Amino acid sequence: MNLRIPGPTPVPAEVAQAGAAEMINHRGPEFAALIASTTDRVKRVFQTENDLLTITASGTGGMEAAVSCHVNPGEKVLIATVGVFGKRFVDITRAYGGDPIELPFEFGTSADPNKIDQALDENPDIRTLMVTHNETSTGVTNKQLPQIAEVARKHDCLIIVDAISSLSSIPIPVDEWGLDVVVSGSQKGWMTGPGLCFVSCSARSWEKQAHTTTPRFYLDLQKHKDYLKNGQTPATPAVNIFFQLHKSLDLMFEEGMDAIYERHRTLAQMTRDGARSLGLDLFAEEGSESDTVTSIRIPDGIDGIELVKVAREEFDTVFAGGQGPLRGQILRFGHLGYVTEEHVRDGLHALEGALERVGHAIPNRA
Amino acid sequence: MNLRIPGPTPVPAEVAQAGAAEMINHRGPEFAALIASTTDRVKRVFQTENDLLTITASGTGGMEAAVSCHVNPGEKVLIATVGVFGKRFVDITRAYGGDPIELPFEFGTSADPNKIDQALDENPDIRTLMVTHNETSTGVTNKQLPQIAEVARKHDCLIIVDAISSLSSIPIPVDEWGLDVVVSGSQKGWMTGPGLCFVSCSARSWEKQAHTTTPRFYLDLQKHKDYLKNGQTPATPAVNIFFQLHKSLDLMFEEGMDAIYERHRTLAQMTRDGARSLGLDLFAEEGSESDTVTSIRIPDGIDGIELVKVAREEFDTVFAGGQGPLRGQILRFGHLGYVTEEHVRDGLHALEGALERVGHAIPNRA
Repeated sequence: MNLRIPGPTPVPAEVAQAGAAEMINHRGPEFAALIASTTDRVKRVFQTENDLLTITASGTGGMEAAVSCHVNPGEKVLIATVGVFGKRFVDITRAYGGDPIELPFEFGTSADPNKIDQALDENPDIRTLMVTHNETSTGVTNKQLPQIAEVARKHDCLIIVDAISSLSSIPIPVDEWGLDVVVSGSQKGWMTGPGLCFVSCSARSWEKQAHTTTPRFYLDLQKHKDYLKNGQTPATPAVNIFFQLHKSLDLMFEEGMDAIYERHRTLAQMTRDGARSLGLDLFAEEGSESDTVTSIRIPDGIDGIELVKVAREEFDTVFAGGQGPLRGQILRFGHLGYVTEEHVRDGLHALEGALERVGHAIPNRA
Repeated sequence: MNLRIPGPTPVPAEVAQAGAAEMINHRGPEFAALIASTTDRVKRVFQTENDLLTITASGTGGMEAAVSCHVNPGEKVLIATVGVFGKRFVDITRAYGGDPIELPFEFGTSADPNKIDQALDENPDIRTLMVTHNETSTGVTNKQLPQIAEVARKHDCLIIVDAISSLSSIPIPVDEWGLDVVVSGSQKGWMTGPGLCFVSCSARSWEKQAHTTTPRFYLDLQKHKDYLKNGQTPATPAVNIFFQLHKSLDLMFEEGMDAIYERHRTLAQMTRDGARSLGLDLFAEEGSESDTVTSIRIPDGIDGIELVKVAREEFDTVFAGGQGPLRGQILRFGHLGYVTEEHVRDGLHALEGALERVGHAIPNRA
């Protein structure tokens, strides 16, 4: 099966195998060495000297940790959204009694730093900005994240970034850009099964956390920081996924982060070119296309849900459909983590075959 | 390494291997079939027709779900505690703005239904009772849980039970005993790696949840119930741990639940007898000893922390020490999940060897 969704992504056989190692005591020296090693290396991928916590939860758990540890009840927060996962920040903030001010950008486009600047001008009491770096639901990357971070700084705002589906595949120099809180998830570019999320926290973040009264326990970052000093986590961690992560980090540093970023850029371009050559339009506006997931418009007259079904059942390839308002409107082709040219080529062939089967005329074919 | 702690427990090789299977789409038909099968069988182990949700989190996450979904801000809750994990219910309730009334029983003893009855008489406004079934920190099982549940019913209280380290190893007929909310965790008797927890919810539980305003998102049980209808989870689940669980349930039903319970009873008795024959005293009061973990008093003049260290370093056996106020006071010998007579025998030999090394005189030895 060619798993071409934007996560969970395929896990290399040796990583999967590493996850099957003998269980260890999560309060013993083996685990302490394991989490020290993974934390150190995940921080290198984050390009940060900030604290880095690893929580047993999916990326959404990491987003919730970011919200509940930083946003006080009734506090106004600006959330620049470019898709479903941006709106998840809105939902979580609302669930925890915060006051989310959503600045929505049209699905398929990216966030405009000037509009964020303006919104913060109009709301001078806001001290927290949330933004998605790579929006899995639309295939858009907010490439102006450094400018957005500057705007946040100008307005003395903490900036919280969902980089779940980009970090490790697309370069994000967290410290250079001054990102206070950054979230990623093991099942994306990290070539590891789902179950762990990563949250980095700056000094400003800890200061804010100390003054946040919103309830939290399992996802309390301060508690994770306290336990990490002793090589532990507050509750029992997903040890097997830590085993996997340890191995996948070996592979990542063997390949080299620059080579990984280049591979993602190349394969994304190959996917976009391939889709266009099939007569398809891309959903993300030019210049905002993601290098981890490509969103493709379903051509008029084609049933997008049927297309995904046919690709899976007849061409052994799993694509993701559209989420929320984009259901049936787009197909999402994932190319992140453990992905090669062959995976993308096979994915494009499967897409072509499925398109023909559901009645789409491929251009320039005899 | 003989891992003799009360969790995470050893994972059978074929279960570990099952976890290394190829990744699948968590929103596709394969995962829907997987979670339907595990849910159905976990429910059989819970002996319940109630809803059963599987969350990607450790057992503490399940406890937090139980608290945040049922306890309103300011609401008084009675929590009968017999150790560290009972006190965790108190901490979580307090973190979420509830008003925990703790009814503490001395460490090593079990909860007395009459005292709970009395406490509920004195606090007629309480509508929620929390209790630990098997207290990992002291090696005590609250064997009068059915009577405690009756008391809860008499006072029209919802009963929330932490059965993390007992369910699947010690019989708990959830429906027969009328337990409203019951939590367990994959890394205990389930012979599966950590990362998943289970929460069962009765009709009374859902009714209470509908009227609970306490903030929650990732751990919201209603959201999990809604997604489960479509064979999904709200956020990306720990797929590899689901693979493991699926296989471990195969093994469990092959052995048979009655045989599993009997094995745990027998091995617990063997551990207790073995410890006594080494001149050691048990920490749990007679009649309340757990069949999943045995707590052993550290003899006078022996350094309990050193004892655990020597067992690990020189006898290849990992025991757990005491937690919180019991640090250095007890040793905990786990015998749950994937455990055989040989594991226990080897554990007792290692304990004997380590005791001699640290200066404990074994009785009746030449």
